[in-house]
Amino acid sequence: MAKSKSDWKAAAKKLKGKVKDLRRAAGDAAASAETAAKPKKAPNPVSPLAPKGGFPALPVIAGAEFAAVSAEVRYKGRTDVMLARLAPGTAIAGAFTRSSTRAACVLDCEAKLRRRAADDTGAAIIVNSGNANAFTGRLGQEAVDAVTAGVAEALGVPASRVFSSSTGVIGEPLPHERITAKLGDLKSALSEDAIGLAARAIMTTDTFAKGASAEIAAEGGTIRIAGIAKGSGMIAPDMATMLVYIFTDATISSANLRKIVSRQVDGTFNAITVDSDTSTSDALIVAATGKSPAAAITDLRSKPARAFEAALRGVMMDLAHQVVRDGEGATKFVEIRLTGAADAADAHRVAMAIANSPLVKTAIAGEDANWGRIVMAIGKSGGTVDRDRISIRFGDILVAEKGWRSPDYSEEETSAYMKGDALVIQVDLGMGRASKSVWTCDLTHRYIDINADYRS
Amino acid sequence: MAKSKSDWKAAAKKLKGKVKDLRRAAGDAAASAETAAKPKKAPNPVSPLAPKGGFPALPVIAGAEFAAVSAEVRYKGRTDVMLARLAPGTAIAGAFTRSSTRAACVLDCEAKLRRRAADDTGAAIIVNSGNANAFTGRLGQEAVDAVTAGVAEALGVPASRVFSSSTGVIGEPLPHERITAKLGDLKSALSEDAIGLAARAIMTTDTFAKGASAEIAAEGGTIRIAGIAKGSGMIAPDMATMLVYIFTDATISSANLRKIVSRQVDGTFNAITVDSDTSTSDALIVAATGKSPAAAITDLRSKPARAFEAALRGVMMDLAHQVVRDGEGATKFVEIRLTGAADAADAHRVAMAIANSPLVKTAIAGEDANWGRIVMAIGKSGGTVDRDRISIRFGDILVAEKGWRSPDYSEEETSAYMKGDALVIQVDLGMGRASKSVWTCDLTHRYIDINADYRS
Repeated sequence: MAKSKSDWKAAAKKLKGKVKDLRRAAGDAAASAETAAKPKKAPNPVSPLAPKGGFPALPVIAGAEFAAVSAEVRYKGRTDVMLARLAPGTAIAGAFTRSSTRAACVLDCEAKLRRRAADDTGAAIIVNSGNANAFTGRLGQEAVDAVTAGVAEALGVPASRVFSSSTGVIGEPLPHERITAKLGDLKSALSEDAIGLAARAIMTTDTFAKGASAEIAAEGGTIRIAGIAKGSGMIAPDMATMLVYIFTDATISSANLRKIVSRQVDGTFNAITVDSDTSTSDALIVAATGKSPAAAITDLRSKPARAFEAALRGVMMDLAHQVVRDGEGATKFVEIRLTGAADAADAHRVAMAIANSPLVKTAIAGEDANWGRIVMAIGKSGGTVDRDRISIRFGDILVAEKGWRSPDYSEEETSAYMKGDALVIQVDLGMGRASKSVWTCDLTHRYIDINADYRS
Repeated sequence: MAKSKSDWKAAAKKLKGKVKDLRRAAGDAAASAETAAKPKKAPNPVSPLAPKGGFPALPVIAGAEFAAVSAEVRYKGRTDVMLARLAPGTAIAGAFTRSSTRAACVLDCEAKLRRRAADDTGAAIIVNSGNANAFTGRLGQEAVDAVTAGVAEALGVPASRVFSSSTGVIGEPLPHERITAKLGDLKSALSEDAIGLAARAIMTTDTFAKGASAEIAAEGGTIRIAGIAKGSGMIAPDMATMLVYIFTDATISSANLRKIVSRQVDGTFNAITVDSDTSTSDALIVAATGKSPAAAITDLRSKPARAFEAALRGVMMDLAHQVVRDGEGATKFVEIRLTGAADAADAHRVAMAIANSPLVKTAIAGEDANWGRIVMAIGKSGGTVDRDRISIRFGDILVAEKGWRSPDYSEEETSAYMKGDALVIQVDLGMGRASKSVWTCDLTHRYIDINADYRS
């Protein structure tokens, strides 16, 4: 049947609509093809291993006040400087990177703590993100002097009791005048409950702010501990550094606080690794204000001292684990639990060789129970080892013993275990009684994305 | 103007054609979007850093014959066992992995070389790929004994002069009967010009076969050297190992050959790194058949001895560089040229800390002249360092000196340099006169692809 003019007109109109639809669809498809072909650099998503529930509620620490401002050291539109003011009588201890190219602020903190200034005056900690003030020659110390002298004057405390940290780009002079210009604002913003703002101001490319706390019921009253941290190893291009600040109202001398911190740091912050690279600026500072009504801690072997040390260790461990959980590209949180080593040095050496091995870490990313690579890492560690005494477990599953694969080994069971996001790899060397746990994460494509700054 | 029926008909026809075109285009776009969104896992492409021109023509070494067969140890449809028969009088020297979990065949080679059997008998080298015979308990030595005894019987040489290597999966018993079943085939295939077949039989996931040679005009005639190698660090899932076999017709005692090999191995095979992971099975064996008409090398300080040592070092270095050029995922071949170290141990330590740093290697992958990360790696190395004496050059471009960025530093010039695929990073510590060059490659997504065995 021949079509009439109006039939053809209607058909043409319908087809015009179809052309329009198809053109729109083609446009969408082309746009989607382009998006797929050139994936945009994803914004920094929160690590899948971040603690649930966001930043924790931290207790107020009497004698410690906090403030954060935006000084635009490098970043715009966010806070980038934190200040902590500590009451007279605050004891301070610290632990720092052992890098031989450490930053000026680290050298300055170490020198001040070595001099052991009397703790009857107030003290302060000032930290900026965006610029590490590392490998900045003599300008580095000049910047530290300018900032710490400014804080000393603003708060009326001796400069020898003002500690500073910087994290961010290496090798760029620190524009310290941007920080000193904000000291008035910082001072007037000081508040006992602003520790969360401080935790956010020190982030560089961390994907979540890190905090932890503890309370100890002691004779005379409660002792409170609150700590914050930043870091995920050496983070995005040019960025670096793990920084940790812990505050407590405990009454304890600097000497005793130093002893506790130095014996707990090896099992906590020195027992984690993301990528085996060590920052120029790592710093841990613990401040005890002495404002708790609880009795002073004097004898470190006493029960209250042991309770305090255990609680402090708990806070340190929690923050250390949060740093690993924010490791670059991490999708698995992994404990290497090394036992049966000949001595403590061997235990640390072998555990770290496993934790740092790129082949072990890529296998974990692939959910592959590749125990041959654990054997390889043990072998290269330099530790005292007898191949035929090694046993290896993934979780509680025995995979290898007596020099080869366990006869009961089930590939299926082990593969199921590897799908979890918190894994324990147990290695017993069968050589002695020393042991060490260290924590690491897997090595994924996102680590490459974050660290290979493809310039165009 | 109103359209006629035929106008509308023509318009409708044209639009129908457009609809057809658009539908086709939409189909193509959708297909292309899908392809882009789900990239297929690429087959193993030849490394972009592979030497141009393929496997080199290697000279015949009088007194050395080669054969390769398919024994299906693990792989199907390719050769996987090589045999080298060496004439009576062949001097042999070796260097092996220092891993404390090294494989049975490595322990066996070391024991045989330690016993220093007289070299007036023939000798042999047998190598399989597909199974590393590592961490296989007592079965490991039994397999080595079966294979080397089989070769000894087939060729009429003492078992103490039969050296074996295995490369591939760790922890699986070696099906040695598959190898011994092929000894007759191997013996009848022996030929002086089959070294290229041997080079291919020992590959695991290498992307190209590796060979190098040298000729020295000596008094009385020519001395020839030909070597083959496999390896790219610890390769694909479960795979491992660098294996190197070098043959020469030089006349030299085993004792002198051992001296030369051991003093050249540190600057060549021990100066390369792909991923800081050390195999359980690394082996270098050098065999000198004594069939060259050239005068025997007796005094290592003589001119002919020095010429031989230099040529052998050249072959070792060439093969070592080829291993780095076949590094997993490598797109850049990088020399770390470290000078001004306090002593040789420091030079090695600092150079390797830079070469192994994941952050340095990802920056190179991103063509980012990130000298801050070099400073970081120097700092973590444990070497004796004064921050303010370090200077760093990318190629000949001075980027940092005297504790901070060089005033003449040009970001543009350095970025252009980083686009090359062969880079030299020069670091002078300014502490002393020791120096060391080491070679590494960049760390790319393909390393993760190769090593994270995503099980489905």
